[in-house]
Amino acid sequence: MKKSLLVLALASGFAMADEGMWMPQQLPNIATELKAAGLELDPANLTKLTEFPMGAIVSLGGCSASFVSPQGLVATNHHCVYNSIAHNSTAENDLLRNGFLAKTLAEEVPAAPGSRIYVTKAVDNVTNKVIDARTAKLSGKKRVDAIEANQKAIVAECEQDAGHRCSVAAYYGSLEYYLIKQLEIKDVRLVHAPAEGVGKFGGDTDNWMWPRHTGDYGFLRAYVSPEGKSADFHADNVPYTPDFHLKLAKEGLKEGDFVMALGYPGRTNRHRLPSEVADTFEWSYPNTVSQFAETLDIIGRETADDRDAALKYASRVAGLNNYMKNRQGMLDSYAQSDFLARKQAEHQALTAWVNSNNANKKAYAKDLANIEKLLKEQQQQGRDNYLLNNASPRLLGTARSLYRLAQESTKPDAERKAGFQARDLPRFKAFIAGMDRSFDVRVEKALDLQSLTKYVALPKKQRNADFDKAMGIKDNMDQAALVALIDSWYAATVLTDAAQRAALLESTPAQFANSNDPFVKAAVALYKTDRSKEAEQEELGGKIQQAYASYMRAKIAFMQSQGKAVYPDANSTLRVTYGNVTGRAHGNEDGNAWTAFTTLRGITQKATGEGEFNAPQNQLDAIKAKNYGPYAVDSMNSVPVNYLATLDITGGNSGSAVLNGKGEFVGLAFDGTLDSIISDWDFNLANTRSIQVDLRFMLWQMQVVDKADNLLKELGVN
Amino acid sequence: MKKSLLVLALASGFAMADEGMWMPQQLPNIATELKAAGLELDPANLTKLTEFPMGAIVSLGGCSASFVSPQGLVATNHHCVYNSIAHNSTAENDLLRNGFLAKTLAEEVPAAPGSRIYVTKAVDNVTNKVIDARTAKLSGKKRVDAIEANQKAIVAECEQDAGHRCSVAAYYGSLEYYLIKQLEIKDVRLVHAPAEGVGKFGGDTDNWMWPRHTGDYGFLRAYVSPEGKSADFHADNVPYTPDFHLKLAKEGLKEGDFVMALGYPGRTNRHRLPSEVADTFEWSYPNTVSQFAETLDIIGRETADDRDAALKYASRVAGLNNYMKNRQGMLDSYAQSDFLARKQAEHQALTAWVNSNNANKKAYAKDLANIEKLLKEQQQQGRDNYLLNNASPRLLGTARSLYRLAQESTKPDAERKAGFQARDLPRFKAFIAGMDRSFDVRVEKALDLQSLTKYVALPKKQRNADFDKAMGIKDNMDQAALVALIDSWYAATVLTDAAQRAALLESTPAQFANSNDPFVKAAVALYKTDRSKEAEQEELGGKIQQAYASYMRAKIAFMQSQGKAVYPDANSTLRVTYGNVTGRAHGNEDGNAWTAFTTLRGITQKATGEGEFNAPQNQLDAIKAKNYGPYAVDSMNSVPVNYLATLDITGGNSGSAVLNGKGEFVGLAFDGTLDSIISDWDFNLANTRSIQVDLRFMLWQMQVVDKADNLLKELGVN
Repeated sequence: MKKSLLVLALASGFAMADEGMWMPQQLPNIATELKAAGLELDPANLTKLTEFPMGAIVSLGGCSASFVSPQGLVATNHHCVYNSIAHNSTAENDLLRNGFLAKTLAEEVPAAPGSRIYVTKAVDNVTNKVIDARTAKLSGKKRVDAIEANQKAIVAECEQDAGHRCSVAAYYGSLEYYLIKQLEIKDVRLVHAPAEGVGKFGGDTDNWMWPRHTGDYGFLRAYVSPEGKSADFHADNVPYTPDFHLKLAKEGLKEGDFVMALGYPGRTNRHRLPSEVADTFEWSYPNTVSQFAETLDIIGRETADDRDAALKYASRVAGLNNYMKNRQGMLDSYAQSDFLARKQAEHQALTAWVNSNNANKKAYAKDLANIEKLLKEQQQQGRDNYLLNNASPRLLGTARSLYRLAQESTKPDAERKAGFQARDLPRFKAFIAGMDRSFDVRVEKALDLQSLTKYVALPKKQRNADFDKAMGIKDNMDQAALVALIDSWYAATVLTDAAQRAALLESTPAQFANSNDPFVKAAVALYKTDRSKEAEQEELGGKIQQAYASYMRAKIAFMQSQGKAVYPDANSTLRVTYGNVTGRAHGNEDGNAWTAFTTLRGITQKATGEGEFNAPQNQLDAIKAKNYGPYAVDSMNSVPVNYLATLDITGGNSGSAVLNGKGEFVGLAFDGTLDSIISDWDFNLANTRSIQVDLRFMLWQMQVVDKADNLLKELGVN
Repeated sequence: MKKSLLVLALASGFAMADEGMWMPQQLPNIATELKAAGLELDPANLTKLTEFPMGAIVSLGGCSASFVSPQGLVATNHHCVYNSIAHNSTAENDLLRNGFLAKTLAEEVPAAPGSRIYVTKAVDNVTNKVIDARTAKLSGKKRVDAIEANQKAIVAECEQDAGHRCSVAAYYGSLEYYLIKQLEIKDVRLVHAPAEGVGKFGGDTDNWMWPRHTGDYGFLRAYVSPEGKSADFHADNVPYTPDFHLKLAKEGLKEGDFVMALGYPGRTNRHRLPSEVADTFEWSYPNTVSQFAETLDIIGRETADDRDAALKYASRVAGLNNYMKNRQGMLDSYAQSDFLARKQAEHQALTAWVNSNNANKKAYAKDLANIEKLLKEQQQQGRDNYLLNNASPRLLGTARSLYRLAQESTKPDAERKAGFQARDLPRFKAFIAGMDRSFDVRVEKALDLQSLTKYVALPKKQRNADFDKAMGIKDNMDQAALVALIDSWYAATVLTDAAQRAALLESTPAQFANSNDPFVKAAVALYKTDRSKEAEQEELGGKIQQAYASYMRAKIAFMQSQGKAVYPDANSTLRVTYGNVTGRAHGNEDGNAWTAFTTLRGITQKATGEGEFNAPQNQLDAIKAKNYGPYAVDSMNSVPVNYLATLDITGGNSGSAVLNGKGEFVGLAFDGTLDSIISDWDFNLANTRSIQVDLRFMLWQMQVVDKADNLLKELGVN
């Protein structure tokens, strides 16, 4: 699983027991199920964000993590600290290859630029502030504008508390809104990571696969000012003292044991309507997969003889491959399932319930009919704009963003479009500065040629006249003409120059208007069209928000009428999922099954001494010598490495602390298996398994192989 | 698993429950265990060879089988009827490829020449006749001669009953002897076999492997004269009416169910001494594996451009590969096990018990010490003669056998050496006639050159002077000289001519002595040496028989003193093994396990449309259409194909009927998994699994795919 798309997930299949990414405050509602599954703690304790264990759970922004010592030591996945290891690596001191261990605080090094640790301090329901009485009466774009204005005001007020980052997150398809207030720790340092041959053992080959033998763990440390406040890196900063930290389990996990994962799952789609399922699996995903396949072909071809260009696109290639494996996995699962039919049947049951009495009918019937129509309209827009959007060169997108920023910057901060406010500037700067490391003209020209060739083949009325005019596209252009046109853009643009790009961050709209850069000129020319199109989309979006919320209100009422607790789809906020350690009755091949645990034996079986399976020699030697320390399990005659569980996780859960029934740390979630990915839409307990690195492996590797005695002591290990 | 070396087996590991190839008459001794495992029949019923179900179990000589209808229909493995299918195949009518189904008795075709069905009619303990009072006093060669004479007399008397084949089999390392009397059915006809893409699905790749999806079944029919007597093929012959036949189970097997296999396991070595284990695994098997690898290289090289020669050696190549996979599998298992240490510890415990009181000491101590010395002597002989034996050209072996036959034929039949009596002549004739189809001069010359090169490199005193003289081998021969010598043999020999070879079957010793054939001349010249060496070996063999029997008597007494029932090693006689249907907690890869059943899904997963995985299209279509007939299992959402069980079987068990606790037919044993092979020596319940084809698959394939309605009706299926 990749950080960018760590799509795991498990949920609503034939057994409800293990499905659910619960908001902490919902846990008392499912206390009976939690106890039955093996939770020994009082579920009420899990609701308090500033107490144990929730107080120990943090976000890295894209990954989850947790405090595991009173000195701000943070445990997460190796792949969540990968950039920080790479950032500190040189050819002479290759930390990625060799691993990294700070033996003292002084040896700890700054994590990659932009690294953050977010400690959630408060989660408050602000639905009535976001959809206040005035907003509730609005529709269309006016509604969207009012919601955005309210959100910005709430966030601005919250961020008055220095050192905190606030956001308003939508739940249940924008039926509810919560304000999330997080302490933003900006001085993050790398403490320890095993060698890549441990932490990324198996590489892309084993990504989303089982059996798995990846030591996907690493440690960061949170630093604050001597006064205990959030602060940028400074030599005088001190380790942060968290309110709570997790304790390591004294007893090892066994098959069948209760486990729960606490973290920040990114996005799921379990409450989607049948038409959204059909549009996604029968149009959107298949199209994207084939589009990405073409993109990969082009990048591969254009960088085959250019190592520097290949390196620039390495991360994108990895991302595209990862995305394709993910989406193809979902498409394969979808093809073998009756998901759409079930979804339709569920929706029919909901509709029948809505129509079963007058009160329901009055409350929901109109919106339930309306949402289908509105979504169809939105889907049609998506299809209509698909080739046009693809045909927009990357530098045109950059120019459009910069010009928008210039336009928004003319307004008072509070009135600027969300995403273009003062608080967003650091992100803009990082993006503009980083482009050089991921951009090559030859590759982009080839990509443009491919997408424009498809676009110009469209009948004229399906093309966009404003876009054609702005970019110089004529009817019936042949390949040579397209090549010449594209060449002319790149010959004239200044956006490929970092300094000139950066200068545009400070430019006024008038300065943009005077530019001779073809992309900037086009961005300026298209601005009015873009805004008009945005307004149209927002008009539709406002209607959808209103109808969707109503649909969700109906769905929740319907499910509650059946005695079912309803959890919201994942939205990158703190959630709890519980389940059990268990293998699977069927493996990849008919006649095979999956055991709940893998062991050190598998590392030896897979090790090749190079590439993705380059297990360190000292690790292999320790395994061969059966030097298991105190971590061997008799029944395995080895040390457990990874284990499967029925935890309902998805991308963003990477690095989530996994706790046993007593709330003790027993490992880190880091992946799911390929046919679990569909669970982002459709939970299936028979197939869905999360993959965790076992605490015993982490301790074995740290003690026997990596000699991380200082950290073991800090973790409370004898 | 191949017919030639169908080495499965499971036995004496950490759990005794499933170990054991029991003689039917022993079953009442383990009645408690059988009942506990799930047998519903009275174990006493299983002891009666002429009643149900034992009366239905037959041998094909190398394979096992069973009557499954009142009209002499016999079920066995596809690989046990493979030669019969091949024999009836032509380029125009490729039965191997397409399968075969006789819709009426008239359409049934003769099985391959020499095919037999043996129905065991009586098993009698003849130990006191074989080792009668006079023999018991003898030692060395005299003892061997007396035992052989007694055996021949017993067999000759038994075979007075026309149409029967009799043999005396040694049990418990020649401690006991039983006379086996079998009705010999000579008119055997092929009734039905599925396509090779079903019956041999997976080929060599899947041989000894799991997951497995092989429909390894086929049907023969036993024919007798109109009077019901054993008879050669004749159009007037009629189907044999067996005393009993097996009934098909009405309920399908489930994981955990009791099963037993009834058949004729070939050979196991569970009662061997530690020194035999060491000699086999540390000298004999490794040497043979490397020798066979060289042989395969040579055959491959010499037949690369000669398709006809390649076909002649195809069967041998398959056999050598199969043997190497088998032996290497055992060596791998041995390397990972503490087998030798356990064997030594067991033997020390036996020795301690023998020395623990005077009666035991007097009875066994001397032989227990003696057997070790004698075995060491025998092992040394084997090592000394290894290169010499390898260096003997194949045609020299043929000449030696033929000359021996001529010599023995000068005596009255009863006095001839066993194996050279009138009853053995048909086997000789078939062998001599069949040589052309497996012999190529160029290949044999290359093999001779390889083995002789090693032999002539030995110091002169380690070579055999008589052999050197007879074959013209001189000191310090270089390659050119060896090539010239070998060329001279094949230039002069007449043994490559089928007619001249056949003529030697009728020749007198005097006619042999006048031959100019270099191999015949050498055979005549070496005859005295050979007999003298044979006498030496028999002298040692007689001593070993005496001491080994005593060792086994001690071992049995020791085990019985611990309350353990003792079963004899397999010796191709009728045995019963029982166990349960069960997968395995560990598969080939760490993190995988084996499920008890495979399903039709796996066929689709493996099918490639060619070669070893060429599943028939109509089968794949039926699977795709989920056309499962009444054979689907809900929990599998498919039809079971093969299943694993803890049955203790080995080569020879192929085709064994597998029965459930009620004695009903539930499938056919056909293979074991690779790390089960070591169980021929050392049973290990954790690893050892037999592989069966499930009755439901057989019926599904016959009904849905092959439309074998007539057979289904005969089998009692609606």
